Amino acid sequence: MSQMLFQHTLANGMVLIAERMEHVRSAAFNFLLPGGSAYDPPEQRGIGSLLAEMIVRGAGSRNHRELSTVLNSLGTDRSESAGRIALHLGCSMLARHLPAVLEVYADILRRPHLPPEELPAVQALALQDLDSLEDNPSSQVRIELHHCHFPPPLNQDSYGTAEGIRAVTPESLRNHYERCVKPNGIILAVAGDIQWEPLRDVVERLFGDWPAGPLPELAIGSHTPYSRHLFKDTHQTHIAFAYPSVPVNHPQYYAARAAEAVLCGGMSSRLFTEVREKRGLCYSISLRHKTFRHVAAIVGYAGTGADRAQQTLEVTLSELRRLAEGVEADEVDRIRAGLKSGLIMQQESTKSRAGIMASDWFFLGRVRTFDEMQQIIDQLTPEMILEHVRAFPCEPVTVATLGPHPLTLPPYCHPYQPNFVPKAP
Amino acid sequence: MSQMLFQHTLANGMVLIAERMEHVRSAAFNFLLPGGSAYDPPEQRGIGSLLAEMIVRGAGSRNHRELSTVLNSLGTDRSESAGRIALHLGCSMLARHLPAVLEVYADILRRPHLPPEELPAVQALALQDLDSLEDNPSSQVRIELHHCHFPPPLNQDSYGTAEGIRAVTPESLRNHYERCVKPNGIILAVAGDIQWEPLRDVVERLFGDWPAGPLPELAIGSHTPYSRHLFKDTHQTHIAFAYPSVPVNHPQYYAARAAEAVLCGGMSSRLFTEVREKRGLCYSISLRHKTFRHVAAIVGYAGTGADRAQQTLEVTLSELRRLAEGVEADEVDRIRAGLKSGLIMQQESTKSRAGIMASDWFFLGRVRTFDEMQQIIDQLTPEMILEHVRAFPCEPVTVATLGPHPLTLPPYCHPYQPNFVPKAP
Repeated sequence: MSQMLFQHTLANGMVLIAERMEHVRSAAFNFLLPGGSAYDPPEQRGIGSLLAEMIVRGAGSRNHRELSTVLNSLGTDRSESAGRIALHLGCSMLARHLPAVLEVYADILRRPHLPPEELPAVQALALQDLDSLEDNPSSQVRIELHHCHFPPPLNQDSYGTAEGIRAVTPESLRNHYERCVKPNGIILAVAGDIQWEPLRDVVERLFGDWPAGPLPELAIGSHTPYSRHLFKDTHQTHIAFAYPSVPVNHPQYYAARAAEAVLCGGMSSRLFTEVREKRGLCYSISLRHKTFRHVAAIVGYAGTGADRAQQTLEVTLSELRRLAEGVEADEVDRIRAGLKSGLIMQQESTKSRAGIMASDWFFLGRVRTFDEMQQIIDQLTPEMILEHVRAFPCEPVTVATLGPHPLTLPPYCHPYQPNFVPKAP
Repeated sequence: MSQMLFQHTLANGMVLIAERMEHVRSAAFNFLLPGGSAYDPPEQRGIGSLLAEMIVRGAGSRNHRELSTVLNSLGTDRSESAGRIALHLGCSMLARHLPAVLEVYADILRRPHLPPEELPAVQALALQDLDSLEDNPSSQVRIELHHCHFPPPLNQDSYGTAEGIRAVTPESLRNHYERCVKPNGIILAVAGDIQWEPLRDVVERLFGDWPAGPLPELAIGSHTPYSRHLFKDTHQTHIAFAYPSVPVNHPQYYAARAAEAVLCGGMSSRLFTEVREKRGLCYSISLRHKTFRHVAAIVGYAGTGADRAQQTLEVTLSELRRLAEGVEADEVDRIRAGLKSGLIMQQESTKSRAGIMASDWFFLGRVRTFDEMQQIIDQLTPEMILEHVRAFPCEPVTVATLGPHPLTLPPYCHPYQPNFVPKAP
């Protein structure tokens, strides 16, 4: 499989990356730019999500309705969201509509109306969304874990706070847009049935005359992680946990991903086997590697009945810690097979390619090639995983729990914040 | 795009369908067979899900661990589940591993161990899964809606009941397997980088000597739909509703899907515009067409604050009913663009092709071609949609609500079942 990767940086700093995928008829793109929830000012938490909703409500010569209509007429499937760091605008379509769709997105990014009269409805939506978390304890405990574990402002979530959402005004939203949306902050990744030169020319024409400007900075605060229990009269006990790992630009990154796969990648992984299949302790258990630029963690979740929660926490954490005792060669063979399959399947989807290329550029300043990743996977050994696991043991562990009762945390966990009190129901 | 579709029926009745997708390196398959929750005997509700968990716990010469290990070594991404009608066994992998993986699945389907000593852990898991619904009110209300709206046994859900799960024994599980799993009930759909003749030969070799047997029958009971409120001290009010539509083998099927798209397909659709964007009534609103062989419905969901729930229900249902007043030509143009894009994107994923081909064969006894679907989409007119909507108006509507208070149901809804009483918290 020969890969056709292209890259171009506009004079104003905007980055365009593209991959030509032959024999598909669709294309997908991903704009990635500052404006995730970490950029929300403390008194306006949630403004990033409001901007993601408002930025598509009219732009250039089109009002909100006309904008939705033209994108629907072009058969697009789109989404806008504020992540923790970046604002994401993604879109899939037939490749022949790509230039027309990019034309509309140039309006959205450069000339959004942010119509003041629509802000109240958008704030109402954001408040509803925040409210819905109360009926979704598994999401709530994961958000709480992020608060406890990561330093500010990386621990801010895109739901925001009710006060923050209410504090946003048409003017502050416009200011937030102007602070975050600059060509030199934007990565545009495109994958699919594209021709590189015409694409580059369209992007130059649409974005080339947009002047660069200063980008907002993220000052990472100092933070001591802590564990926390949220009292709630739920049916199950919801458990989330995190411990330090290496970010994507670290030499041990693939060893960390491999360790994650030994633990929870596929049906013969250790957590699946020990916690779920053998003991039937909990129906859902998951583990993933969460990376920022300079900080990363292994983050896990398990939901289970109150009577099994203590055992689930203990069995899960001891499996994680047992990894430092050794990794079998055949475990590594298996995860290698899984990682390689996954790599090839990703290559077959325009949407996932556009997403991965954008995030590669964001974290690494380049796009990893298929051959490079394949080679790294081929070279994984039990020793590399072990070396990583010993350098980054499962300790200290931050735990967030939600349910009728707190658990007893093992000594290698951050203790529960001492000032918790049962909330009145 | 010339489509390479193949089909073969084995002498024992098993159906093989395949599509060759050039220029991918992966393949995906889907086994579809009787054993969904509609087949659960009344006193063992949940047994279908138990069978989906147990059937992969050892088969042929491999025990549970060996089976997971070999499938992981082959880099598979797999899932097993009991739907409402069918048991689904799905798997993606590199195409070169397809014969080896099918070999393992022949064991799984024909020679599963269903190890008695693992049943208690699997029952514990199923009970946990059932329990987790209590912390997931948006799923709970949708399941309740199915109970209220569809005739038995189509209204049974795959979670089952605690009594049903506990009543399953190693013997009853074996009986259920023997009742449901017969070659003449199986559809196998494969999509990806395949060669037809070698594939057909492998399938003949693995499944050809499996004798056919009588298939279980589904006797659809009579049922009068009713509405129902579940009292629960949730933060939001969760609303689910349904009204009759036409099944996939009906001549008006595409008109029904088009009506659904006018209402809730994309950001310029009516419900999105009126309920979500203009009024900010609820963050999540969705609508989908749910089809069985002879029965179908439009099913919707909205979750919102208790103070807006009554208005959300009323605005939503009046938008649905207003469709009978007329559909604009440009609305049809837009949904045509969306349906066509969607069609092409589906064609690019091996997993979605395998799923669609299996379900086409199940419902229609044939696979719809790309050209046929494209032509049908091209021929959609406002008049066809209107004719359908007038024949199948949004009436009578079954409503299920979950929250602190019931709502006032409009006169064209089935009334709440009169015997509801507030549950003690």
